[in-house]
Amino acid sequence: MRNNIVEVRVVSPIVTRGFRKASDLKALEYTGVTVSHTEIATGPGSIESEFEAAVSVPGTVAEVIRAEAEGVDAVIIDCMGDPGLRAAREVATIPVLGPCETGMHVAAMLGHRFSVLTVMRRLRASFENQAAVAGLASKLSSVRSVDIPVLELEADLDRTKEMLIREGIRAVEEDGAEALIFGCTGLMGCAASLRDGLLARGIDVPVVDPIPTAVSIAAALVRSNLSQSKYTFPLPPEKQLLGYDDIRLPRAIAAE
Amino acid sequence: MRNNIVEVRVVSPIVTRGFRKASDLKALEYTGVTVSHTEIATGPGSIESEFEAAVSVPGTVAEVIRAEAEGVDAVIIDCMGDPGLRAAREVATIPVLGPCETGMHVAAMLGHRFSVLTVMRRLRASFENQAAVAGLASKLSSVRSVDIPVLELEADLDRTKEMLIREGIRAVEEDGAEALIFGCTGLMGCAASLRDGLLARGIDVPVVDPIPTAVSIAAALVRSNLSQSKYTFPLPPEKQLLGYDDIRLPRAIAAE
Amino acid sequence: MRNNIVEVRVVSPIVTRGFRKASDLKALEYTGVTVSHTEIATGPGSIESEFEAAVSVPGTVAEVIRAEAEGVDAVIIDCMGDPGLRAAREVATIPVLGPCETGMHVAAMLGHRFSVLTVMRRLRASFENQAAVAGLASKLSSVRSVDIPVLELEADLDRTKEMLIREGIRAVEEDGAEALIFGCTGLMGCAASLRDGLLARGIDVPVVDPIPTAVSIAAALVRSNLSQSKYTFPLPPEKQLLGYDDIRLPRAIAAE
Amino acid sequence: MRNNIVEVRVVSPIVTRGFRKASDLKALEYTGVTVSHTEIATGPGSIESEFEAAVSVPGTVAEVIRAEAEGVDAVIIDCMGDPGLRAAREVATIPVLGPCETGMHVAAMLGHRFSVLTVMRRLRASFENQAAVAGLASKLSSVRSVDIPVLELEADLDRTKEMLIREGIRAVEEDGAEALIFGCTGLMGCAASLRDGLLARGIDVPVVDPIPTAVSIAAALVRSNLSQSKYTFPLPPEKQLLGYDDIRLPRAIAAE
Amino acid sequence: MRNNIVEVRVVSPIVTRGFRKASDLKALEYTGVTVSHTEIATGPGSIESEFEAAVSVPGTVAEVIRAEAEGVDAVIIDCMGDPGLRAAREVATIPVLGPCETGMHVAAMLGHRFSVLTVMRRLRASFENQAAVAGLASKLSSVRSVDIPVLELEADLDRTKEMLIREGIRAVEEDGAEALIFGCTGLMGCAASLRDGLLARGIDVPVVDPIPTAVSIAAALVRSNLSQSKYTFPLPPEKQLLGYDDIRLPRAIAAE
Amino acid sequence: MRNNIVEVRVVSPIVTRGFRKASDLKALEYTGVTVSHTEIATGPGSIESEFEAAVSVPGTVAEVIRAEAEGVDAVIIDCMGDPGLRAAREVATIPVLGPCETGMHVAAMLGHRFSVLTVMRRLRASFENQAAVAGLASKLSSVRSVDIPVLELEADLDRTKEMLIREGIRAVEEDGAEALIFGCTGLMGCAASLRDGLLARGIDVPVVDPIPTAVSIAAALVRSNLSQSKYTFPLPPEKQLLGYDDIRLPRAIAAE
Repeated sequence: MRNNIVEVRVVSPIVTRGFRKASDLKALEYTGVTVSHTEIATGPGSIESEFEAAVSVPGTVAEVIRAEAEGVDAVIIDCMGDPGLRAAREVATIPVLGPCETGMHVAAMLGHRFSVLTVMRRLRASFENQAAVAGLASKLSSVRSVDIPVLELEADLDRTKEMLIREGIRAVEEDGAEALIFGCTGLMGCAASLRDGLLARGIDVPVVDPIPTAVSIAAALVRSNLSQSKYTFPLPPEKQLLGYDDIRLPRAIAAE
Repeated sequence: MRNNIVEVRVVSPIVTRGFRKASDLKALEYTGVTVSHTEIATGPGSIESEFEAAVSVPGTVAEVIRAEAEGVDAVIIDCMGDPGLRAAREVATIPVLGPCETGMHVAAMLGHRFSVLTVMRRLRASFENQAAVAGLASKLSSVRSVDIPVLELEADLDRTKEMLIREGIRAVEEDGAEALIFGCTGLMGCAASLRDGLLARGIDVPVVDPIPTAVSIAAALVRSNLSQSKYTFPLPPEKQLLGYDDIRLPRAIAAE
Repeated sequence: MRNNIVEVRVVSPIVTRGFRKASDLKALEYTGVTVSHTEIATGPGSIESEFEAAVSVPGTVAEVIRAEAEGVDAVIIDCMGDPGLRAAREVATIPVLGPCETGMHVAAMLGHRFSVLTVMRRLRASFENQAAVAGLASKLSSVRSVDIPVLELEADLDRTKEMLIREGIRAVEEDGAEALIFGCTGLMGCAASLRDGLLARGIDVPVVDPIPTAVSIAAALVRSNLSQSKYTFPLPPEKQLLGYDDIRLPRAIAAE
Repeated sequence: MRNNIVEVRVVSPIVTRGFRKASDLKALEYTGVTVSHTEIATGPGSIESEFEAAVSVPGTVAEVIRAEAEGVDAVIIDCMGDPGLRAAREVATIPVLGPCETGMHVAAMLGHRFSVLTVMRRLRASFENQAAVAGLASKLSSVRSVDIPVLELEADLDRTKEMLIREGIRAVEEDGAEALIFGCTGLMGCAASLRDGLLARGIDVPVVDPIPTAVSIAAALVRSNLSQSKYTFPLPPEKQLLGYDDIRLPRAIAAE
Repeated sequence: MRNNIVEVRVVSPIVTRGFRKASDLKALEYTGVTVSHTEIATGPGSIESEFEAAVSVPGTVAEVIRAEAEGVDAVIIDCMGDPGLRAAREVATIPVLGPCETGMHVAAMLGHRFSVLTVMRRLRASFENQAAVAGLASKLSSVRSVDIPVLELEADLDRTKEMLIREGIRAVEEDGAEALIFGCTGLMGCAASLRDGLLARGIDVPVVDPIPTAVSIAAALVRSNLSQSKYTFPLPPEKQLLGYDDIRLPRAIAAE
Repeated sequence: MRNNIVEVRVVSPIVTRGFRKASDLKALEYTGVTVSHTEIATGPGSIESEFEAAVSVPGTVAEVIRAEAEGVDAVIIDCMGDPGLRAAREVATIPVLGPCETGMHVAAMLGHRFSVLTVMRRLRASFENQAAVAGLASKLSSVRSVDIPVLELEADLDRTKEMLIREGIRAVEEDGAEALIFGCTGLMGCAASLRDGLLARGIDVPVVDPIPTAVSIAAALVRSNLSQSKYTFPLPPEKQLLGYDDIRLPRAIAAE
């Protein structure tokens, strides 16, 4: 921590510049917390499949290594697929957080069971798998989608918000959700309007906006001197690696 | 929030004055976060059984209502049994956190699976039940105890720390834990020595000290505008209540 | 057992006198089994929230201690939240049964999966949590409610019964229930009319009426010389307790 | 019920006459409950494998049909493999109980988690499967065996009891059991000595003796007017059946 | 293996001759694999209940023993209840496969979650129990039925296929299935038409036809030198067996 | 299929040439099945961490696309981390199998519960996560390691085999395994010696050698006309992709 200020680095694992707006991230800062940002150099324009998540990982790992080298205090991977989360935790000692894992734990704490509202139906299996790995399968009520691709979410923002409200109501009334979480970080900023829409129907449930939540939780971990277990995520052994010259592992701390 | 400072109230659900030291709580404050404290007026001297947890609840609920009335931003119940957590969430709109639920979610995020190190063997079932309710049963490796009553933990602090290291090593090597969490808030402050003891054996796992962790997570939730779901925890209906004159429910916001 | 007759004490954890009718309890007696009854001295008028359940516990524990002192053979806590079940088991050596835990195990034995029909929607999380603690989460099909407060169930008993049939049919046809259990002991006596209503639709499932069932199961445990594990529920240690002068723990049998 | 007396029929699914002693069953009777008994006409000498359990089923089903025809009130299948339990429930309207399913539910109610003490190691998978089907997998701590065949249990009864104590202690101290249940009905009558042996070591856990427990639970179900769900276990359709002339299905009540 | 050809024996556990057509089994053969067939001598005309499954087991076990004695390489039990699977595995060293267990594992591998399409609603509990025993409960989306008895499936084959498509669509769109499996081996041969019907609606999910799939998986196990664990399924001990003269256990290999 | 012969392509997701020997793969062929092989162009020398698994994925996906373009019938990813399995399934219509997922399902079918014997302790969490995603968590007894890096397994093959036997015995006797599976495809060929070592101790459990098993299961799926669900794994949408010129998605078949 420099000057007793926690710096949280948001790494957007896509190559589309400007998708994540600086002003939106600035708005997440508060007393004692600053937010910095970067995108990746190689990878997909957006992430809506397992394939795109996979090709975003090498670039993401490179950015996580760079963030720690620059003295950043914690890193958040800016995609609800948490691409590269486990690989990145191996190459860093600072906390690396995925908004999906983080948001699911927070939602489970706040509201008994939660549903994920995402962009495309094809992501359902991925969210169910992530919940299973997090140990939270019994807390996931359902995965619902608005059926709008990531890069088009803002094209008709009113429709996006309207769809979120419609699916959010269904998640509560039909699926048994008692909290909601966005299933795409591209929906950042829509929590207030979704919550208002639900309240208008008499439904008072928390809406977890994963990136803002992950920023504050990351800062909390830093303040508590906590980071991922190096027993679970030891540094990888040194060995041959072809074709990823941009990735340079940190000097070998005693690996297991 | 007053002056952009988050005030977290720690409610110790026991009647033993001075067990929780002001200086220890002061040490948990950081930029943007203050910590206040209170004990309860009626209840047990310490909590080591389901019975004692139960009789601590009415007093705890009274303190949570008072905290919100005083403008506090979040409340933490200072016992790993999380006594009264669900009742308190019904009577408050500010976040109410239990260190057990909170710490278990944090430990699960940091280290694949975790063990609880507690004071008495008789608490094992309670921790397994709490993990089941939190949806985290698959993440709980084991519950181990040092076999020292709460109020005697500090009598021979070196022995307490030594026992924690012994049981912590067993939790990792025999039970498969990859993170540890204290199973009694009376162990607050022992995390560094436990972690050192484990590192001396080459075991690099995070140690979650539940109260400090809950303070920072509570502040994170306040900064993210999140609180417990009122759909899960609506205000109780108004009705007859005999023998608890110290409890006055907040004015009826529309209950379900 | 006196004169080879099992006495089962039903403790209604509310302060509303007359809600539980003596004649209704009398009807539960059979050869070799008598039923006695008491309410609590301090606590809520009825129980429809976690808060009300919590404030019913100290009075309930006091009654359980008294029951054992009076030579009663087993105790049933007369509320489907099983308030104070675990605390009461610590302070007694005679079997203490919760109608929820008992009824869920019986329903699981009789019909593959079961649904709970309760009074208010807000109780759903509580029933799911109780099923999780009982290890029966996979057997709970759904929790459905008739949306009538406890103390109004008898105001329009025909409507109550009609609603039970409607929700019971949905539980079977939509949720996959193959047995039903009441989620409020205030519904005692409605099992026959619910079963008739279901049979009229060709649905032949058992309806577990929790208090009558718990009475007969309690007597069965007494006849089998079984009671709760004192390894799980040892007597609480002796210590300071402020504000609960009506609770006097039984003489210390060797606690763990 | 005849003369307000519940008759429970114990069906021993083996062809070895005299293995189950009349006096032992007589001892299970109490006010309002009588116990009758039969063995099967075709099948194995004892049951220690899935094969033997399977060939005991047709004879068992025949006995269950006969019991109901004779006016018996409830049937218990006298083997911890619960052979033919589901088939028998289809052909009867009176309650049919398996001692394994019944005992596991009772043990789970009494003691948080339980272990099964059985005769041969090869039965472990069977008990784990039965727990899974009962929905109680999370309550089963372990299955331990004394390694003595069923028909030799009484040859050296002292050794049998000694082995039970040894494995029971291990179940509690190493596996986390807080209640015990016999995994063979041939161990009937050994509960008191096992419990004494455990108490001598300071371990106070209930020991569920499955047949006595099933008798009292069966009587409780009869007193509560409960039986297995005919929605789950409808009468089989009438159709060709070769080679089982001793089985005559009851007249077709409306099958599903 | 004779001449490097795997012989898979399909044992139909029913006494209805001609139900399983030789030409249909012939069509399952391919390079390196032949299929032989037999029915059982005693048992039911078809299997639609737990009772009928039970009485098919002794005859099935006899056929499995005979198959191994004849030099067959693997056996498939031709019923989705997998009747006698575990007993048969004890008496054989060659692989014995149940189409339900096998098909569920294959479906889980191919499509995240699967539904079973079966003949009668009453079989639902049985499939859920089989999934629980296989460890695949979390992969089973639903069990749906076409409500046509086994022996009438071919009476109006068009209606059967139409009903399969209707229930298959519901399984995907309402229950969350991403693969389908037939819940009755009498539906063999309907996979192509079901898949076409689903594709016509834009649903591209695999349809597992259990017997053809089990044949190819059985051959795969033989080629990999794999068979059931004799630690799990040891040969039954030799002992008295009344009434099953057609069953002669293979000579005692060292049983456990 | 060309000439009615199934071609299975084994893709080794490492850049170390010659680690996988052609003769060893040749030995896996049998009547009707040929095996071809390739390594990847970019990625790690071996895989012993989440990081190395991640950087092997882009190259693996490229090889899977190439395999289908070349007319191959099925692909196996030659690493027990199943790296890129889900991404590869999106870009292919032929079956893509991971040896871990496949082997775990086969082991679960054969032996009630199984343990994984792997190279390094750090892989334990990964195997537990893979079991959770496969729905097989309840079937995984333990993960044990021989503590020898992948590229050194053959340096002292006798010691490797000896360590496998030691850990295999422990898995059965201490952890409850009833089948074993290698947790590294570098152990291919060691199954016979492990099985002999276990038999010498009287332990008769199947040993699943994942690559041979996956080859035969892949061929079985091809013979059954089965492949992964395109509902679960639809083709990724076309979009910008920087830095992976070697990956060219197949022409857009109608994606979801």
